[in-house]
Amino acid sequence: MVLSQEVQRNPNLYVFLPLLYVVWSDNVLTQRELQVLKNRIDCQSWLSDKEKEFLYRLIDPQLPPTPSELKQWLEAIRKVPLKQAHTLAEIGSLTVKFYSGREANAQVTGALAGIESELGLIGREATYAFRPEYRLSLTQQQHTHDMFDVSRMTALLDAEEAPLIQRVKQVIASPEFAYIETDNLNEYRQQVLRWTQILASYGFGSIGYPKEYGGQGDMAAYFTVMETLSYHDLSLVVKFGVQFGLWGMSVYFLGTEKHHKKYLKDIGTLALPGCFAMTETGHGSNVRGIETTATYNHNNQTFTIHTPHPQAQKEYIGNAALHGRMATVFAKLIINGVDYGVNAFIVSLRDEEGNTLPGITISDCGRKLGLNGVDNGIIRFNQVVIPMENMLDRFARINENGEFESPITSDNRRFFTMLGTLVGGRIGIPRSGNAACKSALTIAIRYGDRRVQFGPEGAPEVPILNYRTHQRRLMPLLANTYALHFALKYLTRRFLDRTEDEMQEIEALAAALKAWGTWNTTATLQECREACGGKGYLFENRIGTLKNDTDIYTTFEGDNTVLMQLVAKSRLTDFKQEFSSMNAFGLLNYLAGQAATAIMELNPLIVRNTDEAHLLDPEFHLNAFRYRERDILTSAARRLKRHIDEGMDSFDAFNVCQHHLVQVAFAYTERVILEQFIVAVEGTQDDGCKTALMQLYRIFALNLLDKHKGWYLEQGYMEGVKTKAIRKLLNQMCWDVRTMAVPLVNAFAIPDACLAAPIALNHPPAFA
Amino acid sequence: MVLSQEVQRNPNLYVFLPLLYVVWSDNVLTQRELQVLKNRIDCQSWLSDKEKEFLYRLIDPQLPPTPSELKQWLEAIRKVPLKQAHTLAEIGSLTVKFYSGREANAQVTGALAGIESELGLIGREATYAFRPEYRLSLTQQQHTHDMFDVSRMTALLDAEEAPLIQRVKQVIASPEFAYIETDNLNEYRQQVLRWTQILASYGFGSIGYPKEYGGQGDMAAYFTVMETLSYHDLSLVVKFGVQFGLWGMSVYFLGTEKHHKKYLKDIGTLALPGCFAMTETGHGSNVRGIETTATYNHNNQTFTIHTPHPQAQKEYIGNAALHGRMATVFAKLIINGVDYGVNAFIVSLRDEEGNTLPGITISDCGRKLGLNGVDNGIIRFNQVVIPMENMLDRFARINENGEFESPITSDNRRFFTMLGTLVGGRIGIPRSGNAACKSALTIAIRYGDRRVQFGPEGAPEVPILNYRTHQRRLMPLLANTYALHFALKYLTRRFLDRTEDEMQEIEALAAALKAWGTWNTTATLQECREACGGKGYLFENRIGTLKNDTDIYTTFEGDNTVLMQLVAKSRLTDFKQEFSSMNAFGLLNYLAGQAATAIMELNPLIVRNTDEAHLLDPEFHLNAFRYRERDILTSAARRLKRHIDEGMDSFDAFNVCQHHLVQVAFAYTERVILEQFIVAVEGTQDDGCKTALMQLYRIFALNLLDKHKGWYLEQGYMEGVKTKAIRKLLNQMCWDVRTMAVPLVNAFAIPDACLAAPIALNHPPAFA
Repeated sequence: MVLSQEVQRNPNLYVFLPLLYVVWSDNVLTQRELQVLKNRIDCQSWLSDKEKEFLYRLIDPQLPPTPSELKQWLEAIRKVPLKQAHTLAEIGSLTVKFYSGREANAQVTGALAGIESELGLIGREATYAFRPEYRLSLTQQQHTHDMFDVSRMTALLDAEEAPLIQRVKQVIASPEFAYIETDNLNEYRQQVLRWTQILASYGFGSIGYPKEYGGQGDMAAYFTVMETLSYHDLSLVVKFGVQFGLWGMSVYFLGTEKHHKKYLKDIGTLALPGCFAMTETGHGSNVRGIETTATYNHNNQTFTIHTPHPQAQKEYIGNAALHGRMATVFAKLIINGVDYGVNAFIVSLRDEEGNTLPGITISDCGRKLGLNGVDNGIIRFNQVVIPMENMLDRFARINENGEFESPITSDNRRFFTMLGTLVGGRIGIPRSGNAACKSALTIAIRYGDRRVQFGPEGAPEVPILNYRTHQRRLMPLLANTYALHFALKYLTRRFLDRTEDEMQEIEALAAALKAWGTWNTTATLQECREACGGKGYLFENRIGTLKNDTDIYTTFEGDNTVLMQLVAKSRLTDFKQEFSSMNAFGLLNYLAGQAATAIMELNPLIVRNTDEAHLLDPEFHLNAFRYRERDILTSAARRLKRHIDEGMDSFDAFNVCQHHLVQVAFAYTERVILEQFIVAVEGTQDDGCKTALMQLYRIFALNLLDKHKGWYLEQGYMEGVKTKAIRKLLNQMCWDVRTMAVPLVNAFAIPDACLAAPIALNHPPAFA
Repeated sequence: MVLSQEVQRNPNLYVFLPLLYVVWSDNVLTQRELQVLKNRIDCQSWLSDKEKEFLYRLIDPQLPPTPSELKQWLEAIRKVPLKQAHTLAEIGSLTVKFYSGREANAQVTGALAGIESELGLIGREATYAFRPEYRLSLTQQQHTHDMFDVSRMTALLDAEEAPLIQRVKQVIASPEFAYIETDNLNEYRQQVLRWTQILASYGFGSIGYPKEYGGQGDMAAYFTVMETLSYHDLSLVVKFGVQFGLWGMSVYFLGTEKHHKKYLKDIGTLALPGCFAMTETGHGSNVRGIETTATYNHNNQTFTIHTPHPQAQKEYIGNAALHGRMATVFAKLIINGVDYGVNAFIVSLRDEEGNTLPGITISDCGRKLGLNGVDNGIIRFNQVVIPMENMLDRFARINENGEFESPITSDNRRFFTMLGTLVGGRIGIPRSGNAACKSALTIAIRYGDRRVQFGPEGAPEVPILNYRTHQRRLMPLLANTYALHFALKYLTRRFLDRTEDEMQEIEALAAALKAWGTWNTTATLQECREACGGKGYLFENRIGTLKNDTDIYTTFEGDNTVLMQLVAKSRLTDFKQEFSSMNAFGLLNYLAGQAATAIMELNPLIVRNTDEAHLLDPEFHLNAFRYRERDILTSAARRLKRHIDEGMDSFDAFNVCQHHLVQVAFAYTERVILEQFIVAVEGTQDDGCKTALMQLYRIFALNLLDKHKGWYLEQGYMEGVKTKAIRKLLNQMCWDVRTMAVPLVNAFAIPDACLAAPIALNHPPAFA
């Protein structure tokens, strides 16, 4: 067309050029589009028949322009000065003007008026090709801002533990701790052992033990070390936790002074590597059912430790396959044929040269999905005799007459008291998992900020973090990680400051945050892997390794589903006690409170309230979370009672309600996390940090309200207009927070040497 | 108490023994409980003061019974014949009778009436310890039934491909295909290559190619082979797919006869291993933006292939690091400085000895999260000259004048037409992923059926698959796998029988099922891992490997999130065309239809209908799924239009609606899967199989309705009573289907040698 005689004779024909380019450039013409174009041409009275013929030919599907012709058309249009986005009609007129040197008349300029909507071309997308440089969409413009002081945020997160965190980071970022890439299981395990030895040499292993045994008596520090180590290799974290936590703490908490004196110092230096042998092949969650026996022989005051059958072997025992020399073994104590329930005993596994002792058989669990730097093993005992003093006898002992003695009458009660002292593991694990989330989010968010893909036609590509789906995938997870950071600190503090009376509550809280937190870890790492695409699948970028290593966090230290049921049962007990301890006046107050809730919150103005100020108000969130928690708990209790009243077996009744009970636990957990996030935001002094945290807090709250909208709508607590407004606001909040996402992950201050992923570091890619 | 003088003197005191056991056996007494017990004792007129004193001592928290005493009490109670479950009062009376030899009087038997509810002991749980053998709860009784003929179900799933599936299974279950456990990347890759060679020697590789090139011209068979191989090692599947699918099919579909003649036979026998070099470091999803150049030199009729910068390197290329000798390379064709868009070229990488050719630099992607048996590499081209005939010229060629020629005018259109021919990859991948789900579900469900854990106090433990949460986790995933099986067969059939006109629809369908299916794979494998606890984490049980290997399925052959947006855009286009092609009469009909839907389905009787027959009716499901699909699509279209009408840049408008658009795609995909599941159930002849499939179908439908209940409630399509009824029914369906879950996975008929997981096979565990 550009060079054709018709156009030279009548430059007004140029008015069609942009349209023709657009219709040919992306699609074959449909019959309908063809008809629209024909009609338009037909009704232009300023065109001669010959000119019409010429134009018909140009839209004939049998005679498409060649690819070269199409490119020439584009070049011709690109010469026309366009100052801004235009309609096809406007661009057509400008093209006429440019090539004819004069304004087109109204007939000509009107020829294509409104053609976009007639052809169904969406908006101005079709014309981007003509002047890409004018295009600056909001999506393109979004970028990272420094909206707060990153170092202040780091200080706020680290709080009083900052100096210790700094010390641990220095060690794990040192050249000795450089990651090794090895195919070889054994090499990897030896490396992890060496790293653990180095940590012990700095005193990190014994930090929680009393000073008289080489420690610093600082349990808070122990958790901080575990968490900070989790920026490094998680096999190291678990090896460290098995040795100094499970093995050492079991001796410390279940044993008495004689054990502490004899073992604790060597455990803390790793001179005495050991295991925690509780789980059996046949008994994981239901540890109370373990079948290893410890039979007391009063004649020589010894115990015989024995594995009666394969299902009673100790399985998955960390440190067992290679390095452990002793173990805390959980076994049923038998005295004169009577079973006194599960107790703990110290049993030697290997001599100082590492040879397995007589009666002990250990096999290797072999390769696992992750944590392959930890040597898990299977232990079998064949009539292994140990001296009487090897019983860890803080909660039960055998007296000089060979009789069992315990301040706790019930075997069950004693067992759960013993377990309760070990609840620390349920704190360390979610903290480690959350640190892994911090690593993965740092990698995925930095990558999303620099990785560009797609863009408006002809314009530069856009960072993938500017896309709404990408934001919606990552921002709520970032909010969860911050939320859990504060909630886990709260849990740790409650645990360290505990009184006897609070133990049941703290155990439930630990179980709840362990389950919620580690499921969140699995979900976060999965999303980060996918958000980094193929790069996320490469070993070098570490997300895969973090994912595999933490995958078992949802299982060990208590299977999450089982834990959530324990939490629910604990909540039901609290609920019952709250009710049963109420006098008539208390009950009246409670009922009045419930009624007030109903009046206040279920009134039509509130269930439909979509004001942004209301939706962002922590008061609204707190009410909604608490209402949900209370309502689900009450209804679960009612449902259980109804089933039992109707004669259902109580085991069956709990089973029928199991799904409901898990929701009880979720609602409780989420209310606690929300409260602690609010406390953290409110306690923040620095304005910039406070604003940023408030934004994250809002995403956390709105995301959970959105997730549970089905429930809120079912209950009539919200109406559809409100849940829709929440969704919309959540999307908007994710868009807003994206601009500070990079500073928010930078605040985790993970050393480059630990993070290690090339896609997250500032090295320019080199030719491979 | 048992031997005390008081009891010998007055055996009526035995009435308290069961109660005393219960209160001491599990808990320390609270103040309130103590008060209840004291009150009860106080008001018994038949007790002397001395006897009351005696009883007070027995409940004194300062003077607990010893553990041995508690055990003696239990033994004493266990001697009492109890025929069924009793209240504590009843057991007390029976104890009196047993030890005194006569009936207790009414005063005594009434002493403890209703004590359970006063103490808050839930139901009869507390008394299980006395007579465990009478306990047979529903939860304990549930077990696997053979409710249909497994071999008939297998025949139904395999259908006309049964003989081929059998042949492939025989090969992969043979000793040559025994899994190797090796730490060594190179050994593993060589093993996978050898396996691929064996498959090629049986003619499985070329099965889809025309007979004249050594194949059997059976594309359906190619997909079946890929799917069946997925019961084995997934690295093998991907290696196989890269060679015979990506490399071979690109030559077949993008090349012309000269290429077929020259290469196809050798590709099919694996004599010519090759690669598919499309993705670049800088361009994965947006392949149209790749930057490798193929510059045409008319003087000697060659192309020069060149990598201009590191971001333009070909990355993640399967078969590249070690074995590939040639590659289909996608590059921008440049003729005389003009860019003609992406075209494909055959480029030699290595000579027959495996030496990299001049100008080619290949590096290894190294270890990945999974699929480590595939040698992915990075390829860089430095001015590599190839002959003119190496252009794959089905859709574009260079004529004798050195000019570009194509029957497809637009570069974009041509590019998408090329890609369209390769859509087969988006069929093979979800089919492979679904086969991995079949393996993992077979392992997890068989394990859940035999693994016991917990049970009523003192009674045998219960298979974990009898627990409602376990059922709720696994049964919907089993239903999804069956649903996808039929949907993916439908997709395959549509693809094989396609006409030109249907291509856009089929591409959208493939994208939709690829994304939905592979996300389901990730979710299923994760749940199966967790459902198998520690056993699921062991390498030997294969779930971890399957999980890691399939993890990239959500990314390669099109990132799922990007695909879902393409699906949505395709749906919007269809929607627009449907509307714009309607004449006034059609539009009226459509609006009348919508109104009828509103009247029929949104009437108060239906939105609240909780009849089981209605909730299980496929008609109801279809209406609900279609309503959702149509409504989300319409609202997305309206929202886009409104934004654009208000002057929003269209790129921004699509971004703002991205989250909404992904929902459009989900709703579409789920409607299609539902329809195909209904078709499959209706077409089933065998009654037993039909019933089983109908049950799975219902779980599939109800699970998705439950998942989207928030949306349905928001829209007023259902009310809370109905969504609650659906949840309840879903839980019940999961309970019902559990009894046939094992036969349902057995019907996948995965060879033991492939399944391999010890926890899923019938070998008794031996001492390690």
